[in-house]
Amino acid sequence: MEAKLEFIAGGGITSPNGFRAGATYAGIKKEADDALDLGILFSEAPCKAAALFTTNRIKAAPIVLCQQRLQAGRAVAIVVNSGCANAFTGEQGLSDAAEVADLAAGNMGLSSEDVLVASSGVIGQPLPMKLVRASIEQIVLSQEGGHELAKAIMTTDTVSKEAAVRVRVGGGEFAIGGIAKGSGMIHPNLATLLCFLTTDAAVNVDFLRLALRKAVDVSFNMVSIDGDTSPSDTVLIMANGLAGGEPIAQGSGQADVFQQALERVCIYLAKSIARDGEGATRLIEVNVKGAASVADARLAARTVVGSSLVKAAVHGRDPNWGRIVAAAGRSGVEVVEAKIELYIGGTCVFGAGQQPPFDRGGLVKVLGGDEVSISLNLNLGTGEATAWGCDLTEEYVIINSQYTT
Amino acid sequence: MEAKLEFIAGGGITSPNGFRAGATYAGIKKEADDALDLGILFSEAPCKAAALFTTNRIKAAPIVLCQQRLQAGRAVAIVVNSGCANAFTGEQGLSDAAEVADLAAGNMGLSSEDVLVASSGVIGQPLPMKLVRASIEQIVLSQEGGHELAKAIMTTDTVSKEAAVRVRVGGGEFAIGGIAKGSGMIHPNLATLLCFLTTDAAVNVDFLRLALRKAVDVSFNMVSIDGDTSPSDTVLIMANGLAGGEPIAQGSGQADVFQQALERVCIYLAKSIARDGEGATRLIEVNVKGAASVADARLAARTVVGSSLVKAAVHGRDPNWGRIVAAAGRSGVEVVEAKIELYIGGTCVFGAGQQPPFDRGGLVKVLGGDEVSISLNLNLGTGEATAWGCDLTEEYVIINSQYTT
Repeated sequence: MEAKLEFIAGGGITSPNGFRAGATYAGIKKEADDALDLGILFSEAPCKAAALFTTNRIKAAPIVLCQQRLQAGRAVAIVVNSGCANAFTGEQGLSDAAEVADLAAGNMGLSSEDVLVASSGVIGQPLPMKLVRASIEQIVLSQEGGHELAKAIMTTDTVSKEAAVRVRVGGGEFAIGGIAKGSGMIHPNLATLLCFLTTDAAVNVDFLRLALRKAVDVSFNMVSIDGDTSPSDTVLIMANGLAGGEPIAQGSGQADVFQQALERVCIYLAKSIARDGEGATRLIEVNVKGAASVADARLAARTVVGSSLVKAAVHGRDPNWGRIVAAAGRSGVEVVEAKIELYIGGTCVFGAGQQPPFDRGGLVKVLGGDEVSISLNLNLGTGEATAWGCDLTEEYVIINSQYTT
Repeated sequence: MEAKLEFIAGGGITSPNGFRAGATYAGIKKEADDALDLGILFSEAPCKAAALFTTNRIKAAPIVLCQQRLQAGRAVAIVVNSGCANAFTGEQGLSDAAEVADLAAGNMGLSSEDVLVASSGVIGQPLPMKLVRASIEQIVLSQEGGHELAKAIMTTDTVSKEAAVRVRVGGGEFAIGGIAKGSGMIHPNLATLLCFLTTDAAVNVDFLRLALRKAVDVSFNMVSIDGDTSPSDTVLIMANGLAGGEPIAQGSGQADVFQQALERVCIYLAKSIARDGEGATRLIEVNVKGAASVADARLAARTVVGSSLVKAAVHGRDPNWGRIVAAAGRSGVEVVEAKIELYIGGTCVFGAGQQPPFDRGGLVKVLGGDEVSISLNLNLGTGEATAWGCDLTEEYVIINSQYTT
């Protein structure tokens, strides 16, 4: 089916029809004057909803609540806070998460069961419920409010992450929008702290779950900042169907274009997260091809992009390519030394079993760019994958040694 | 069997009878004036020998050579250099490694097959054979030369690592000595770059292999500096039998005390490596008990000690204990939030499902010590393990962004 897919300039989570959002400063974050830390996403029409959560055995209270409520595949709104993860907070945490949903539901005239909750921030501290109770009714929902919500979920992020695409297909159109936050504790699987996606497409809930998993696999699960994963990782999508038409289902005419559009939004947000890794000065993109399998390609790409030594070398613009092949070798995937071809920013630094002559000064310049591309051909099969990360800087250490004190 | 086991003051790899060593500066390392970068370990009597090598799929040339020569379980000498890993160097690297052994064998009047080779340093550069050929005959072997050899294997290490124990048992005695280098690219499995061990005990080669594997499992495999492993990781033991007596074998009277002594030396060296991790200012010891299995305890301990966020928090003396439990949760082992007890330096920071009141200022002081002890009781079973690592500092990033340039 012919389709036209374009990014919406300045688009975000409220770009699809029928979604509104807003945020306020409740005082949960101890931050700058213009900080926001509590927000709501709301849909005019009930949504099909699907989500993926952290693989961490310790799950934050909001995730426990969301997992229960999402069994029916339905949601209308979600309340999000930053500054406190409400993780490792026991029974009190669960009851606080439920109360947050109750408060928001009361204000919006919804059933509490239709309201989800997400939190991000410091682990092991109770959610300051007095602040939440005092502030939640101040949130004003609007069609422009998506930008505020994107800011309200930030913790150590330096910029908010937003994207939206519009798809014209078969005489109709729909949009997919999203916001995300990341920065630290970002690693496969589910390499994000929080990502919320919206669409006005009508989508069958089983297909929505499947499409989300596939999109996350090629985006958020291919990002590594520091090897840690958090108890709060959440990727959620809500589809309100206001674009009309038959619900898109597995195998239906618009399934492929929906999948493609969703992946575009997720990859855009995932790259934004990698680029804004704590202390990062540049985005690293690692493409592995010629692997024995896609699984091998994924593992090798993620291992290289997650290697502290590779990340530090890129930071120092050090063409120390041996660390890249050493990381690929450590990943456990099949590699044959003599078959490997390695390119940094288009320059071959290893191939045919040896190091060809290359312009070292030119390579140092390439490594100093905003985006550094590493391309590894294992020449063993057809498996291919791309992963994203960032350089490791002194600033990362400074940020993470001063987080709670 | 009653046994007395004591560390030898100032002891090292030439403490056991019949071992001699020496080193010289060949110019492979571009270092300070008193640098050493090429050395030899030699035994007066042929040794039973066993070794464990990197699990990295890319293996340095010296490892390929050692794996071939160690099939017979015999060795007399080993030549070691730092400054160049001779890794990812193809056929040339293999032929260079063999020539290094040939040169040393010629000087010492040995069969080349009895000489092993090990290298550590930059990956992907050919070994500068002209320098090796010009310098190798300058190496003078002596009973005090173990200290020189310990220095000659250092790369970014700030101090050399040496240890030896003497064991008195059943009317006789034997010694076990060792040297190691580490610093970066240190992670399970085989968390070391190079470790050489010697003993004058008579040991059956099958038991020697078994004992080495067990000792490495509780020492070098429980150390994490930066999550990377190198293509050069080698732990080698040589037993020359000069202490006399029946060879120690699996199940024989002295097997347990030999195992215990070997583990003491390996753990001492492993902790020295962790303490001297690149840029490290303090040693972190993580003890996990009450795990569902030993495998779970090992995995949880290694994941916590390897977490960038935990390491950065310790560096900043930040009692951000949530990162510790989050890392344990991410490790994939069985954990039940309400059962966890977590202690930092003896202070309980989480237990019985909640955070007890604790002296935050006192904890900040504990985190500022030379050694930080983290103790996690999962209260699920009897599995226990200890892992070692170091804090993550700005200095680590600086060292690793300027390595080859």
